[in-house]
Amino acid sequence: MAHTNANKIYGLIKAEAVLTQAEDLRKYLTGIETSFGYVLSDKEGTTFYTDARYLEGAEKALKNTGISVVQFVSPLENLLKKYRQVAVPVGKMLVPDYEKLKSTGLEIVDSLPAFTAAMSVKEDYESAYIKKACEIADKAFTALLGDIKEGMTENEVAALLEYLMRKFGASGTSFATIVAFGENSSVPHHETGLRKLKSGDIVLIDFGCKYGGYCSDCTRTFLFGEDGKHGDFKKAYGHVLEAHMLVKEKVVSGMTGKTADAVARDCLKNYGLDKLFTHSLGHGIGINVHEFPYISPKSEDILKDGMVFSDEPGVYLAGSFGIRIEDTVTLKDGKIVSLTDSDKKLMIL
Amino acid sequence: MAHTNANKIYGLIKAEAVLTQAEDLRKYLTGIETSFGYVLSDKEGTTFYTDARYLEGAEKALKNTGISVVQFVSPLENLLKKYRQVAVPVGKMLVPDYEKLKSTGLEIVDSLPAFTAAMSVKEDYESAYIKKACEIADKAFTALLGDIKEGMTENEVAALLEYLMRKFGASGTSFATIVAFGENSSVPHHETGLRKLKSGDIVLIDFGCKYGGYCSDCTRTFLFGEDGKHGDFKKAYGHVLEAHMLVKEKVVSGMTGKTADAVARDCLKNYGLDKLFTHSLGHGIGINVHEFPYISPKSEDILKDGMVFSDEPGVYLAGSFGIRIEDTVTLKDGKIVSLTDSDKKLMIL
Repeated sequence: MAHTNANKIYGLIKAEAVLTQAEDLRKYLTGIETSFGYVLSDKEGTTFYTDARYLEGAEKALKNTGISVVQFVSPLENLLKKYRQVAVPVGKMLVPDYEKLKSTGLEIVDSLPAFTAAMSVKEDYESAYIKKACEIADKAFTALLGDIKEGMTENEVAALLEYLMRKFGASGTSFATIVAFGENSSVPHHETGLRKLKSGDIVLIDFGCKYGGYCSDCTRTFLFGEDGKHGDFKKAYGHVLEAHMLVKEKVVSGMTGKTADAVARDCLKNYGLDKLFTHSLGHGIGINVHEFPYISPKSEDILKDGMVFSDEPGVYLAGSFGIRIEDTVTLKDGKIVSLTDSDKKLMIL
Repeated sequence: MAHTNANKIYGLIKAEAVLTQAEDLRKYLTGIETSFGYVLSDKEGTTFYTDARYLEGAEKALKNTGISVVQFVSPLENLLKKYRQVAVPVGKMLVPDYEKLKSTGLEIVDSLPAFTAAMSVKEDYESAYIKKACEIADKAFTALLGDIKEGMTENEVAALLEYLMRKFGASGTSFATIVAFGENSSVPHHETGLRKLKSGDIVLIDFGCKYGGYCSDCTRTFLFGEDGKHGDFKKAYGHVLEAHMLVKEKVVSGMTGKTADAVARDCLKNYGLDKLFTHSLGHGIGINVHEFPYISPKSEDILKDGMVFSDEPGVYLAGSFGIRIEDTVTLKDGKIVSLTDSDKKLMIL
């Protein structure tokens, strides 16, 4: 039986009906993954309208959840005739869908704040899915290390890691795996390609998988062999790791995103590395690999117990090297607990 | 050097400036894959505004293309101050972004029709990417067949196929691979899971990969062993294959989507199977795995030379079996040419 949240969201929103199309929110409401459908809740209950590709599967998964499954027949307006008011996630709607809804004359309420509040604080079953996705990713990464050989391309390493995550139970990746060798590591989001691994290369791997529809996100940077030319890299690695660990020590529930970001940024500033930390410290993780809250220099988002996010300071020296050390973490009893947790001490393979 | 289309699109749109954020359109304009950025064209040229995660990579890829790369500094409105008019893809914009743009007082022109027209008819370099994605998928599927064993889960088969596509050069999948064993095949978009393969099972696999940022899409249905209980399935398989092949024979450039759809639907009607053909015949394929044109019972989209789309009739009997036979095809000199092309004769592994 699927974990559903339609009642919870309906209870949070003051509106006659709640209509939801966005894929991530639909997954949150129904617990199942579909590429098309509308979830409609009112005081009578919830109906999931989808097409023939998903009907039978949805009926099976939603049995005994209280959500009825009905084949969608356009136009959408017909489903809304009995209401005067409907809540929709305005910020996740495309302009034509919103314009069409407005043209019905219905009063429109924004449901997105309720989704954001509910989805950012994970329930136990959600934390368990994320924890499992993180464990699979850790296990796959550890297994990968034994199989990395000189001459492999970035693509080959990515393919192997994705296979291992799948093999260990993931339903897929949470984003296209980033594998960057040598100088490519200085591009934080390098496009994984045909660069071959050479002895002495820096290796940066940013990877995540999905389990039960929930994401993990992790980055490790290490050396493939020791050529004695990596003094600056090693020094910087130590500072990035210090910033990463300081976040785990100092960030607590109740902090704003910008205060948390500053913990890492100020630490790197002590070493003159803050200018090379060119992205934000982290982002919320759940059904989406990037979601609320955001942990950036300007974020006023309040971190709370049950939130899951990334701790990922990085330092990038264009054309030379890049370092990022990222774990998926959660706040529990006010403090950070790491969910991905493979070794972060500088590794020389 | 990246294949770019910013000049082409700017030439098609009658507007002072063309501003594009949507990820697929941004890829089309710049030739590179990024998760954040704005492309802005005016009569002086084109600038790609992105963040630090992509700057160095974008500068390298866009060198000598005429597109300048600049780090984005919010707010977006500052980039538009010198214009009175801007074209944006209205149908791909989220409501808050559009509302903010409207509040600037700029005259807004819809750029999406120009993108749709340009992107649906593939240039040679685009066809070559799709052809390569299709060849990789075919090769991976053929290799997979030798490795399918009794007792494997749907997830394991999906993992292996995805690995093989990656190994043979794909940058990733074009969607989450669907593997359905036995009765699960009757759900057209089954959620791949832990069902184990048994002798005599029907196997339905819907899979695609990306190459150069372009997608392939293919489905095969076959039997894993022969238990003599599949008379109805075999008969229906022959009819679905007949419908699939008839599309390849009869569909020509200039037809509407609904006329093409009817070729398959009418064929299945002869056998009383049209009621079990619960989805549309096909969809355009390119940077997106589902895009213009749509080949459905109501589609007025005109099929043209250079378009790439799927030919995927299917028949689904709830709780019993499903069959789908899908190739990625293109129109060339008025006629259909198949791009995925592994064997479609009913296979008994």
